Amino acid sequence: MRPGDSKTVMSKRQPPPSAHDVARLAGVSQAAVSRAFTPGASIATATRDKVFEAARTLGYRPNLIARSLIKGKSGIVGVVIGNSRYPFFQAVLAAMSERLSRHAKHILIYTAEGSAPADPQVEELLKFRVEAVLLMSATLSAKLTGQCQREGVPLIGFTHPPKVAPWLSAVTGDDLGGGARIAEHLLQQGYRSLAVIAGRPDASASYAREAGFTRYLAEQGLTPPVREFGHFRREGAIEATRTLLSRTSRPDAIFCENDDMALAAIEVARFEFGLVIGRELGVVGFDDVEQASWPSFDLTTYSLPVEAVSERVTALVADAEATFPVTAVVPGELKARGSTRR
Amino acid sequence: MRPGDSKTVMSKRQPPPSAHDVARLAGVSQAAVSRAFTPGASIATATRDKVFEAARTLGYRPNLIARSLIKGKSGIVGVVIGNSRYPFFQAVLAAMSERLSRHAKHILIYTAEGSAPADPQVEELLKFRVEAVLLMSATLSAKLTGQCQREGVPLIGFTHPPKVAPWLSAVTGDDLGGGARIAEHLLQQGYRSLAVIAGRPDASASYAREAGFTRYLAEQGLTPPVREFGHFRREGAIEATRTLLSRTSRPDAIFCENDDMALAAIEVARFEFGLVIGRELGVVGFDDVEQASWPSFDLTTYSLPVEAVSERVTALVADAEATFPVTAVVPGELKARGSTRR
Repeated sequence: MRPGDSKTVMSKRQPPPSAHDVARLAGVSQAAVSRAFTPGASIATATRDKVFEAARTLGYRPNLIARSLIKGKSGIVGVVIGNSRYPFFQAVLAAMSERLSRHAKHILIYTAEGSAPADPQVEELLKFRVEAVLLMSATLSAKLTGQCQREGVPLIGFTHPPKVAPWLSAVTGDDLGGGARIAEHLLQQGYRSLAVIAGRPDASASYAREAGFTRYLAEQGLTPPVREFGHFRREGAIEATRTLLSRTSRPDAIFCENDDMALAAIEVARFEFGLVIGRELGVVGFDDVEQASWPSFDLTTYSLPVEAVSERVTALVADAEATFPVTAVVPGELKARGSTRR
Repeated sequence: MRPGDSKTVMSKRQPPPSAHDVARLAGVSQAAVSRAFTPGASIATATRDKVFEAARTLGYRPNLIARSLIKGKSGIVGVVIGNSRYPFFQAVLAAMSERLSRHAKHILIYTAEGSAPADPQVEELLKFRVEAVLLMSATLSAKLTGQCQREGVPLIGFTHPPKVAPWLSAVTGDDLGGGARIAEHLLQQGYRSLAVIAGRPDASASYAREAGFTRYLAEQGLTPPVREFGHFRREGAIEATRTLLSRTSRPDAIFCENDDMALAAIEVARFEFGLVIGRELGVVGFDDVEQASWPSFDLTTYSLPVEAVSERVTALVADAEATFPVTAVVPGELKARGSTRR
């Protein structure tokens, strides 16, 4: 094929050979072609051989989509992602895709914008006969969760509260335990004037991380921390850090409810306020993203392990009984680093 | 529904209502149900109304997979990703998914491990009647590219060389131009002893970035730079930087062929060798990832714009004529920042 030929060749598109073409060449019925490619179907060996030979000659490929109609299994796992630009979610998606591939299952991605329930996306996914639906930072109405349940399609929420949707399985980090462990660590390191840069008021991860943190302080007889919202975003955290560090009674440690916000807080404190991180201001994050361990940040954080999370989600998808809702809390651990060393 | 009921209810899985169920309830033929849901098909209004009413009653949903068999359009774009853990690729995938969603198209992800051609993955994708296949850091045999061409499925490579597969459309950054622009910038800033931390010997992006850089130096009568391979990875770049900075004639500037490597080079030079970045050692990357503009790095780089790339790929997918191979070079620009300020 010379480059000059390309236009001519490309303009004659051939449709892929059909079962009908194979049947005609093999001199058998179309039903026989279908049986030849269906494991366990009854068909004479001679007929099957004729079909296979014709299929090879024509380059015929049985259609997986058609087959999924018959078997009711598409090999597709639907994902609706509400915050596709958050690098941590992208990392989880990549890890999950690798893992599911090994089970011959593949991810079909729909994105949801804004905070409306992902009903239209999930309705479409159901039409593709997906084997499971994973909601990442996305919500669903009771009507659609009921629909998934009736059709036997497992619904799995990632970092979402099972209480909002009782038919939803959920995989989350240990938000409550992590929040408490972080409070304990800050007190052990001698920090006393604590602040929180919270995620979003409506996010369950935000609620639970803060609840664990505040409850631990209360148990020690301490008052709740000062709080600003950073909305889980870098820009929000930059503003929140400026506000907190401009107060007359400045906090000596800040718990940021995810790492993206903590990395930004470190930079604002260091480059705008000239503070020595650790000694003059403790900073803690949540998630343990890759950058947390880089020497520029050396960020203390509580891990939400990407591999363990993707393993749990894959197990729920692969498990045929997962339509019964399960809540899996993936334990993490405190990663004590330089950002909380006085 | 009380929580205690869930197990019982869940164990009785109902299959979704079929076109047959709708036909029976509406008192019409199954073919009439099919016509009712096919835009433009001939059907009496009274019949259609009966079908729609029965469909609403039963919660029937026309099957998109079945429909794609008829129309030959699945709304699915297949992606094979060879290096799914590279954050830049994850960001491109997220941006592309958002953009394609607006065209009612969705990404089905297959991952490829190792450097073998992605033939098995693409064979599977073809069975799903995908509308296009995007190869991200993955290769394909001539046989499979030919197959895609014959079936009229556009094949698009991202950061891949069209010369390897003449039937492949490709979207790349301006690797040659960017490499040259970086060399020019370093000379303008007064750096004279230049080094390169290269990607992989077999990667086209690596080859082109370095060719542009070295060619510019040659045009100025300068000798080729010292070179170490970093394999586009952080760990590789850490080793390469240590080697370069331990030489008796230490370079005064390093061009890293992607940003991930440049961020690592900055940290090694700063924290292990105590060098002041910019003044004592210039560092340049390629891609312009989010971290490049963070104050901790303030990295000079040449941009490979995520939005522009995803826009071009989406246009190639949406354009029905894209089976004719196109090579789109997405222009970038030099982002001069503190890491090359003396």
